[in-house]
Amino acid sequence: MSFQNPVFIPGPTNMPEALRQACYMPTIDHRSPVFGKILHPCLEGVRKVLKSDSAKIFIFPSTGTGGWETALSNCLNAGDKVLAARNGMFSHRWIDMCQRHGLDVQVVETPWGQGIPAGTYEAILKADKNHDIKVVLATHNETATGVKSDIGAIRKAMDAAGHPALLFVDGVSSIASMDFRFDEWGVDVAVTGSQKGFMLPAGLAILGFSDKAIRASDKATLPRTFFDIKDMQKGYDNNAFPYTPPVGLMNGLKLSLDMLLDEGLENVFARHHRIAEGVRKAVDAWGLELCAASPEFYSDTVSAIRTPEGFNATDIVTVAAKTYGMAFGVGLGEVAGKVFRIGHLGSLTDAMMLSGLATAEMVMVDLGLDIKLGSGVAAAQAFYRHGQASARKAAA
Amino acid sequence: MSFQNPVFIPGPTNMPEALRQACYMPTIDHRSPVFGKILHPCLEGVRKVLKSDSAKIFIFPSTGTGGWETALSNCLNAGDKVLAARNGMFSHRWIDMCQRHGLDVQVVETPWGQGIPAGTYEAILKADKNHDIKVVLATHNETATGVKSDIGAIRKAMDAAGHPALLFVDGVSSIASMDFRFDEWGVDVAVTGSQKGFMLPAGLAILGFSDKAIRASDKATLPRTFFDIKDMQKGYDNNAFPYTPPVGLMNGLKLSLDMLLDEGLENVFARHHRIAEGVRKAVDAWGLELCAASPEFYSDTVSAIRTPEGFNATDIVTVAAKTYGMAFGVGLGEVAGKVFRIGHLGSLTDAMMLSGLATAEMVMVDLGLDIKLGSGVAAAQAFYRHGQASARKAAA
Amino acid sequence: MSFQNPVFIPGPTNMPEALRQACYMPTIDHRSPVFGKILHPCLEGVRKVLKSDSAKIFIFPSTGTGGWETALSNCLNAGDKVLAARNGMFSHRWIDMCQRHGLDVQVVETPWGQGIPAGTYEAILKADKNHDIKVVLATHNETATGVKSDIGAIRKAMDAAGHPALLFVDGVSSIASMDFRFDEWGVDVAVTGSQKGFMLPAGLAILGFSDKAIRASDKATLPRTFFDIKDMQKGYDNNAFPYTPPVGLMNGLKLSLDMLLDEGLENVFARHHRIAEGVRKAVDAWGLELCAASPEFYSDTVSAIRTPEGFNATDIVTVAAKTYGMAFGVGLGEVAGKVFRIGHLGSLTDAMMLSGLATAEMVMVDLGLDIKLGSGVAAAQAFYRHGQASARKAAA
Amino acid sequence: MSFQNPVFIPGPTNMPEALRQACYMPTIDHRSPVFGKILHPCLEGVRKVLKSDSAKIFIFPSTGTGGWETALSNCLNAGDKVLAARNGMFSHRWIDMCQRHGLDVQVVETPWGQGIPAGTYEAILKADKNHDIKVVLATHNETATGVKSDIGAIRKAMDAAGHPALLFVDGVSSIASMDFRFDEWGVDVAVTGSQKGFMLPAGLAILGFSDKAIRASDKATLPRTFFDIKDMQKGYDNNAFPYTPPVGLMNGLKLSLDMLLDEGLENVFARHHRIAEGVRKAVDAWGLELCAASPEFYSDTVSAIRTPEGFNATDIVTVAAKTYGMAFGVGLGEVAGKVFRIGHLGSLTDAMMLSGLATAEMVMVDLGLDIKLGSGVAAAQAFYRHGQASARKAAA
Repeated sequence: MSFQNPVFIPGPTNMPEALRQACYMPTIDHRSPVFGKILHPCLEGVRKVLKSDSAKIFIFPSTGTGGWETALSNCLNAGDKVLAARNGMFSHRWIDMCQRHGLDVQVVETPWGQGIPAGTYEAILKADKNHDIKVVLATHNETATGVKSDIGAIRKAMDAAGHPALLFVDGVSSIASMDFRFDEWGVDVAVTGSQKGFMLPAGLAILGFSDKAIRASDKATLPRTFFDIKDMQKGYDNNAFPYTPPVGLMNGLKLSLDMLLDEGLENVFARHHRIAEGVRKAVDAWGLELCAASPEFYSDTVSAIRTPEGFNATDIVTVAAKTYGMAFGVGLGEVAGKVFRIGHLGSLTDAMMLSGLATAEMVMVDLGLDIKLGSGVAAAQAFYRHGQASARKAAA
Repeated sequence: MSFQNPVFIPGPTNMPEALRQACYMPTIDHRSPVFGKILHPCLEGVRKVLKSDSAKIFIFPSTGTGGWETALSNCLNAGDKVLAARNGMFSHRWIDMCQRHGLDVQVVETPWGQGIPAGTYEAILKADKNHDIKVVLATHNETATGVKSDIGAIRKAMDAAGHPALLFVDGVSSIASMDFRFDEWGVDVAVTGSQKGFMLPAGLAILGFSDKAIRASDKATLPRTFFDIKDMQKGYDNNAFPYTPPVGLMNGLKLSLDMLLDEGLENVFARHHRIAEGVRKAVDAWGLELCAASPEFYSDTVSAIRTPEGFNATDIVTVAAKTYGMAFGVGLGEVAGKVFRIGHLGSLTDAMMLSGLATAEMVMVDLGLDIKLGSGVAAAQAFYRHGQASARKAAA
Repeated sequence: MSFQNPVFIPGPTNMPEALRQACYMPTIDHRSPVFGKILHPCLEGVRKVLKSDSAKIFIFPSTGTGGWETALSNCLNAGDKVLAARNGMFSHRWIDMCQRHGLDVQVVETPWGQGIPAGTYEAILKADKNHDIKVVLATHNETATGVKSDIGAIRKAMDAAGHPALLFVDGVSSIASMDFRFDEWGVDVAVTGSQKGFMLPAGLAILGFSDKAIRASDKATLPRTFFDIKDMQKGYDNNAFPYTPPVGLMNGLKLSLDMLLDEGLENVFARHHRIAEGVRKAVDAWGLELCAASPEFYSDTVSAIRTPEGFNATDIVTVAAKTYGMAFGVGLGEVAGKVFRIGHLGSLTDAMMLSGLATAEMVMVDLGLDIKLGSGVAAAQAFYRHGQASARKAAA
Repeated sequence: MSFQNPVFIPGPTNMPEALRQACYMPTIDHRSPVFGKILHPCLEGVRKVLKSDSAKIFIFPSTGTGGWETALSNCLNAGDKVLAARNGMFSHRWIDMCQRHGLDVQVVETPWGQGIPAGTYEAILKADKNHDIKVVLATHNETATGVKSDIGAIRKAMDAAGHPALLFVDGVSSIASMDFRFDEWGVDVAVTGSQKGFMLPAGLAILGFSDKAIRASDKATLPRTFFDIKDMQKGYDNNAFPYTPPVGLMNGLKLSLDMLLDEGLENVFARHHRIAEGVRKAVDAWGLELCAASPEFYSDTVSAIRTPEGFNATDIVTVAAKTYGMAFGVGLGEVAGKVFRIGHLGSLTDAMMLSGLATAEMVMVDLGLDIKLGSGVAAAQAFYRHGQASARKAAA
């Protein structure tokens, strides 16, 4: 474990020093008023990152998966009907969780590489005259395929169908890195974690609930205690948790939120887009293709890159780790062996990203792919470089 | 937040520097072989701390409460009958969780200050001819009252009744600080967390399952995904987790286990007993009484101390925090306002403990209690001091 | 190295967490503008701590000893005459350094336990009609004996004699803990280090120079390069050092200065006095005496405590370290074996100090001294405790 | 200060996490035996890194400049004659220090870009029949020009002349990164610092003295106290320093030495050579030239790169810092504005180095230099990449 190179997995992401130090605080009494000064700024900051005025924010010592379970178990009853699209490993896993909790999932099978088909959702919702469907699930950013879906379009589909279902959105690998509009999109539950855009260690499930989702929890009978939002809310009302809170991680989250909001959310999103666009230029220069089928689906946090037929893409990840000490992501599920993934979210600079691209190139050449060394790097450099005007100004 | 004084809450406990540093490691790829080198030593070390040869160990990014839910949801079905004693706030909360998960709890109401009545359990189990009771719950150390229960006696009661129920033990505030014998006591599920005897931040639920408990999970139908031990086991078999693992905390756990096992478990337990005994000498010198009704119930990790009738014990905690920057624990539930608690587990020295006792004395005198300054400290010093032979040897 | 107990040596002192984190920042380019944002606040903050409007501040990667050498080598010529009092090990060492640099030191031998005799200084200076004496040395706080000298009185003596000598003050164990008035006292060079009142690791010599001292450096011919203040000043004028600066330590100093100035210097001094007074109450309760001969000499940063005739005071330090893991200071030079020292400067709370006193009591009893356990603690507690009014307010 | 990118200044270098943590230890009593367990492994480890069996090692809380002063002031008398070559800013500064300490320096002016001319040294030494020259100075690696000198050849020149002068070597930017042979080369004093090959913060001057140099110190009359090696040796003999030691930094040095010796010195040197060679391939691909005049002078720790006539090389450093947040080194003295420097020593990976090269390319293109983006990166990649055999093995 040399810790020298940055990581390029799509989360956990590289941790800024200041966040590590914030997490690394000594023990405090979590029942003292000090904890409230960590808790409430976290709740308020997350609400801002979600672009919501009124969402209730919940933070659990858990992960995004625990966040999904929180969404389901607080709002639904066994046997309830749920609409979901399967277009990657993470949407698949959420569907699987629904089924294991006794929900009746109507699955819209979608090619891996494409986003959620809002039109299909609309048709299904229109056909659901009895409003049996209680919840519509949407994975904002499929981490497995590097595919972004259009949540606003799904809301429009729901509205067009006049359907009262709740809208649950998995924003684990989008929130705090890509634009997310809880209020504007009419999201009812948004789910994320600490280890992606928030640049922290794994260990927090972070959720926003609309009033409608909170009301649904009054009647929901799926069993829950650890993930119960009412217990959690009671805790918050007393500056506390219903059990021992993860104080250090939340202290880190507080600082992460300060950093993100100080930079400005739009700047954060633009920075992610810029870094991602450089990666895409490199992929193009390599003569390779993204798993994401078309530009509208391109993710600004992770790129899944298809390798030629007959080549095992996982070898790239293995060789990069063993030979160059650099971490990329493997393909999962349907695209295992067919893609490798470059995570480009969180705390990254042009220089860091170029080191990732340069290493990927060496690995691909080592493995016999027909890639020209420096070609992807040059394409990204051409995109990243600031130009003569900027240089003249800096040098002045 | 001055972080200058040690904390004397009954967890989270004071973190040794080395453990803090181990926890806040930079990001690694949790799908790389590096993670396996953290995971497996954790599993093996926890098994040793539980004194078990064969328990399956599970570690979740959660807390002790999540550990309880893991125990219930993996082994039981809605409507199953459970036997439990309520003798403090934590046993109360576990009972409450059972009820919220649709279990039928037979509650043995027990005075707060006493341990679980093994005889009563035996009688109930003998009367349960149909073996309707599927699980016997036992809180090894009631953190709210500073009361230890005799788990070996409960096992004997179960055996005397010839009853096949599973035995679930909450060892959150005992494991790694007080003797715990998973195999000898025939425990089926043991539950603990990272933030007590393991001296780490909160954020890990740590469990041991017997084969019998694992088998029970084959048929258990309570819904679960995040806390599913089968998914987790499949993850472990691939050096992984079914979702993002809390790598840093587990790296801390690995080092904590090394530290505990290097010191020797019996030495760790003796150290806790010694520190605790000094606290009890001080309480006696103050003319106060423990909540624990008799010596057999005395906890070596936390002392709940009764204050005189008409005095609000919570004031001690408030004044200590505000005036002296020191954290003690309040009374909870039935004993709220009647006791204050001194946590004395984890990483503590005589000198640290004496600073806690000295501060408690100042606060009690400030609040008008009839306590002689220095009296409790002197009683603890007389117990802690090493004596002339030791001094002569050290000075030589 | 358990790092669990606070240290009670008279420096290096206990480091607040925030300062440790500030010191161990990652590498930056020390020739970039970033360094200027660390450097200049350090210079300005130190000037404020010295209570000077115009002193030039110099910071060297060195220690207090290097600071002394900086003072001498920048202002003096071989053969120059210097006036100094020897009343402890540190004033002795400074005299020794002068002699090794070829200076002619007129030594005023002073009983260890007493301060610098201003009257004697005045008589000598009056007698020095030719003004051969170029510098008057004064150790503000003799760390070896816990004796404070009255620097204002020395300035008055110099003025009464109408003597133009420079006044050099060793404030290593006083500055940032005890009142120091560079301008009011007409100090020409003040010397301190990072590891005492500034609560940082050792590694910085910190000095203030008056204009007069700066002018003296124009003609001073003692050889110097590393410690040359002119080179250093040229560096500062370019936001730099003449060699690689200790960036992390200076980043720590910047934060330390913020902390001290935010607390308020008078509050810092009052806090030190209060903690020290509690220690003195304990010493009195033990029936022991300070090395400092009378209250006017009592140091608020370190107490040297005399032990009975025939007892080896160093044993206290040895046994405390080996048996209780706690660090006190030994006696040095003339008072070796006759005193042990309790450092009470820097980042300390009442509770921390009481843990030191309680441990010292156990050690002394272990070693057969006729001390009553708890007696010193009780005396300090009675002084430290806040009283009923404060408690009622806090509890409200 | 984002701390995200590695630095490419020729020191201070990038600090491995483990070293930062080792430096970042809490306060210990530096007079306790614990300190000896840090001190002696440091002394022994440095001796091994110097490839010496018997050199006395001295570590001062200072920098390389202080190390130079230690060498001079402990071994020489005012007026002593010294032989030195000036071939860059650091050799220049050492000569300047000699002159300021009253030494008579015979300067061999040498083109910046060339190494020390051993032949000229030999001729001068042969001509010095009276052996007036007391010390021969040699800068092993001129950090300003990226020029390595052949110290073995200088020893041969001295031997050929039968001259008894001492040989002082500045190894600040070579030791622990490039081969250094104290015994074989007959070095009398070697000087280095903590912030280069040892990968630590600045703050330690580290020296090796031969017996002959130690003997010279018996008669040397240049004034010294802080840098006195006899005082220091007396300290070491008691597991101590003559003043407060920089404990944390030395704890870091201890671990750094373990890391270097575990890796194996020859492997460390090979790694530096490899990284450096990649940089030189890139420089060649850019069509630029090194300041170092020929391959025998190429430094494996820093490359000074000449830019075209009329171009201000310092702009590269300014723009890299302001626009890309990356630190390179400027040209100093004679080559100011004519070269920029890439430091490639200490803790670096291929990927890190490629990020530096890629950034330098963008900056040069931004500034209008005729450089092809990706060209230098590709040349370095071709050199760094491990090849198909290695990849096949890793993937297997």
